[in-house]
Amino acid sequence: MAFTLADLELIVAERASASPDESWTAKLLAEGPARAAKKLGEEAVETVIAALEPDKGALIGESADLLYHLLVVLRARGVLVQDVLDELERRSARSGLAEKAARGG
Amino acid sequence: MAFTLADLELIVAERASASPDESWTAKLLAEGPARAAKKLGEEAVETVIAALEPDKGALIGESADLLYHLLVVLRARGVLVQDVLDELERRSARSGLAEKAARGG
Amino acid sequence: MAFTLADLELIVAERASASPDESWTAKLLAEGPARAAKKLGEEAVETVIAALEPDKGALIGESADLLYHLLVVLRARGVLVQDVLDELERRSARSGLAEKAARGG
Amino acid sequence: MAFTLADLELIVAERASASPDESWTAKLLAEGPARAAKKLGEEAVETVIAALEPDKGALIGESADLLYHLLVVLRARGVLVQDVLDELERRSARSGLAEKAARGG
Repeated sequence: MAFTLADLELIVAERASASPDESWTAKLLAEGPARAAKKLGEEAVETVIAALEPDKGALIGESADLLYHLLVVLRARGVLVQDVLDELERRSARSGLAEKAARGG
Repeated sequence: MAFTLADLELIVAERASASPDESWTAKLLAEGPARAAKKLGEEAVETVIAALEPDKGALIGESADLLYHLLVVLRARGVLVQDVLDELERRSARSGLAEKAARGG
Repeated sequence: MAFTLADLELIVAERASASPDESWTAKLLAEGPARAAKKLGEEAVETVIAALEPDKGALIGESADLLYHLLVVLRARGVLVQDVLDELERRSARSGLAEKAARGG
Repeated sequence: MAFTLADLELIVAERASASPDESWTAKLLAEGPARAAKKLGEEAVETVIAALEPDKGALIGESADLLYHLLVVLRARGVLVQDVLDELERRSARSGLAEKAARGG
């Protein structure tokens, strides 16, 4: 089975329940949403920079960091990753219909 | 079946193959990785701000935008979302072992 | 006389006192600090991208946008630009002394 | 005399000419524009977060960091801060005239 965001969410949840002394993720969460959001912002900057550089490996690594810290932010705020994916599904359905209508389909 | 990042990647790919006149995503991709990266950065800023505000709905919406534009950046650079998820799986396995070792397990 | 941040602050203040219908800056300020902060974040992303591209003119333009929107954020929060410059002066004096001490001077 | 961006530019220049072992700024510059740009992006994220929090002191501190790292980026790319300020002056003059014309003045 391929690894998914749902798997990653379980890993974040497991680490979140550890002691802040044992887990960097638990420590980040203990410091509150602003701290987690700051880390997310930093990872986004690194992803933007990696997107402009030739090395695909760097972009993969930074995108992984970005996804991880997005899930930490969602955890810090009590939002499930599936809520975000459901929102993406709703938008896709909507814009699919809009395109179909526009094409006269 | 729950909606996944792999589903979203298919939607991005479909839109990418449309004409830039018909699809905003195709237009963004036609303008190159720097344009897609800029959009990703903007969505990250909005996610950071939403993370600090009380409304969970805003955070869900901004996180959806962030994921969407991350996948557009990956597409612009020819990186598969599964490569990023595989990297997350590798890191999780590694840090799981590290934790196990640290606990003397 | 060369143009300074203090001159720019006066211009922001003047525009801030205009009607939101007449001035984009007044409109931004009327929408509150989060809106101004979002704009600052977007301009920072563009400056980061411009810093990585060969065209110096783009970096000059984006840096100008970044400074302008930093001053809008400071105005939105009632902070004077001189307070920020004074903080920079204090830090410089401190680290100058630290360097002098380190050199045994 | 109040401290200005021009004073800060001199301080950055002085540190830039130190050895990377002695000066953090010299070290940052030795690592190239992408490294300086990343630091600028991080400071921008922190400024955005500080803009949303009640403590004005935090906003002053983060704005100082942002200005400092903007000047490091400009130095890394060989752009003078006065070039950015001149650009702001040009834009202000232009939009002042535009406003005057709009008012029929």
